[in-house]
Amino acid sequence: MSLQANPVAIVVHGGAGRIERESLTPELERLYHETLERSLRAGHEILRGGGSALDAVEAAIVIMEDAPVFNAGKGSVFTAEGKNELDASIMNGSGLQAGAVGGVTTVKNPIRVARAVMENSKHVFFTNEGAEKFAADNGLELVKPDYFRTDRRWKQFLNWRKQEEARAKPQAATTLEQPEDYFGTVGCVALDAKGNIAAGTSTGGMTGKRFGRIGDSPIIGAGTYADNRTAGISCTGHGEYFIRHAVAHDISARIAYKKESLAKAADDVVKSVLKKAGGNGGVIAIDAEGNVVMEFNTPAMSRGYIDREGKLKTAIFK
Amino acid sequence: MSLQANPVAIVVHGGAGRIERESLTPELERLYHETLERSLRAGHEILRGGGSALDAVEAAIVIMEDAPVFNAGKGSVFTAEGKNELDASIMNGSGLQAGAVGGVTTVKNPIRVARAVMENSKHVFFTNEGAEKFAADNGLELVKPDYFRTDRRWKQFLNWRKQEEARAKPQAATTLEQPEDYFGTVGCVALDAKGNIAAGTSTGGMTGKRFGRIGDSPIIGAGTYADNRTAGISCTGHGEYFIRHAVAHDISARIAYKKESLAKAADDVVKSVLKKAGGNGGVIAIDAEGNVVMEFNTPAMSRGYIDREGKLKTAIFK
Repeated sequence: MSLQANPVAIVVHGGAGRIERESLTPELERLYHETLERSLRAGHEILRGGGSALDAVEAAIVIMEDAPVFNAGKGSVFTAEGKNELDASIMNGSGLQAGAVGGVTTVKNPIRVARAVMENSKHVFFTNEGAEKFAADNGLELVKPDYFRTDRRWKQFLNWRKQEEARAKPQAATTLEQPEDYFGTVGCVALDAKGNIAAGTSTGGMTGKRFGRIGDSPIIGAGTYADNRTAGISCTGHGEYFIRHAVAHDISARIAYKKESLAKAADDVVKSVLKKAGGNGGVIAIDAEGNVVMEFNTPAMSRGYIDREGKLKTAIFK
Repeated sequence: MSLQANPVAIVVHGGAGRIERESLTPELERLYHETLERSLRAGHEILRGGGSALDAVEAAIVIMEDAPVFNAGKGSVFTAEGKNELDASIMNGSGLQAGAVGGVTTVKNPIRVARAVMENSKHVFFTNEGAEKFAADNGLELVKPDYFRTDRRWKQFLNWRKQEEARAKPQAATTLEQPEDYFGTVGCVALDAKGNIAAGTSTGGMTGKRFGRIGDSPIIGAGTYADNRTAGISCTGHGEYFIRHAVAHDISARIAYKKESLAKAADDVVKSVLKKAGGNGGVIAIDAEGNVVMEFNTPAMSRGYIDREGKLKTAIFK
């Protein structure tokens, strides 16, 4: 139980999709839970100490980016060309400031660069080599591209490539199908003691992505949104659907304009709108009162929270 | 007066900002009006013939991209490195399909590539070399980067660089200020006889942009949105504000959830929300009844429409 007058809360996700229970080794399952908990505790400690929601979101996401188990930072999946191209975004609910990066290959923690874009530039969205140049200019940690080459993801990539080669290729579109059912994006939303909400999202994208494809994670309004007057939201799932439905902003708009609760807005968007459209995935969110929502239309979403009573919970399946 | 049972309508913009009347030569002013009119007529002819809103939007925007007078396609401004990096997006209001490209340098008509992304891939957003590869694979017209080098924009660039060099540079952020007061992005929204709405936006971005900066134009929900149930919207202005406020989707959401008219929603967002935040620019939009809106908080926005009665109007100043 927190002793603070104003509630603080934090929620994280490590991706949504279909995980076969049998394919989830006990070790991997333990790693998911352990990393989610470590991420939550890091963010929560900042919040309890009177720190900002932005700092909490960044700290929590950095832990998930550095853990090979999630598809973000270190554990990112491979593109069709066998590279790692990372996207991230962050938003501050108090002034609607935002920062994002797309297609970076040499930045250890994309969420830190997204925050630097927000705070050290007048812009929101930097991409590719330009974003890396900005990261270098701002003293952020760079790594060699092979930092991101983990055995697990490389095997997934080789497996994807084998499937691709086996397929007939009548047209380019066919080869662009989602090869996996699990979208391993990570995200965090936090509410600090001053009533400020922040949200962030970070991803390696889709295995086998090409053409400089960017999903919803770095798109403000799609994968990430935060507004103190409504809620902070971070999404994970089949990104194209989240862009078309402007999912993160839509949840915020339903609270603002339809006067829906966060729970109702998230439920309607994820279980009704997205589900009908065929958009698999989920969202995490916190509103100004510290209500926590974790909503998904897939069999699993790795997730967790420390709520305003200080209660910690992590989960993978429904 | 149209003889069709169902109304068709089209609206275009060629950017918003401050134009000093004295700096606008009669020749340039004539060119603005003449190009806007040519663009409107091309789109309207398609609509009158029973063609789709998507075809009308593409045709209208291609004309503006090919005209050196607007900051899109041929007339695009230069980046800090003296290059041209173009962005565009398109959206179909009937199924919320969308396509976008960012940072392309060798594509003659970015709006055509955005449409190809929407129709020939399962994705929404391709960037940089990847997007160019996709354009080539899809048989779209490529040009050498110097196709985009017009004298007028090059002089603007040299002028920008001189100002930059003259300035002290205490930190990177200072050098990233908006060097111009006019945002020359182009856009189009159309309603076809089947009741389908489409919207598209295309831009060369900001003179002196760097770090692979992407503005609102290729961001679905920010610079472009279309939903048959609400409206189609295309934006122009200081892109970062349009991203943070998810302007295009916000107008759609106000119609859907607050039951506001398009006129009221556009007025509130542009004249109140954006104005208060310091976000200069404007929007064009059409709703399902064919109501046309052209709203801006800047001294000028080059714009025009052919409304459901077939009346054509173009304008630059208030």
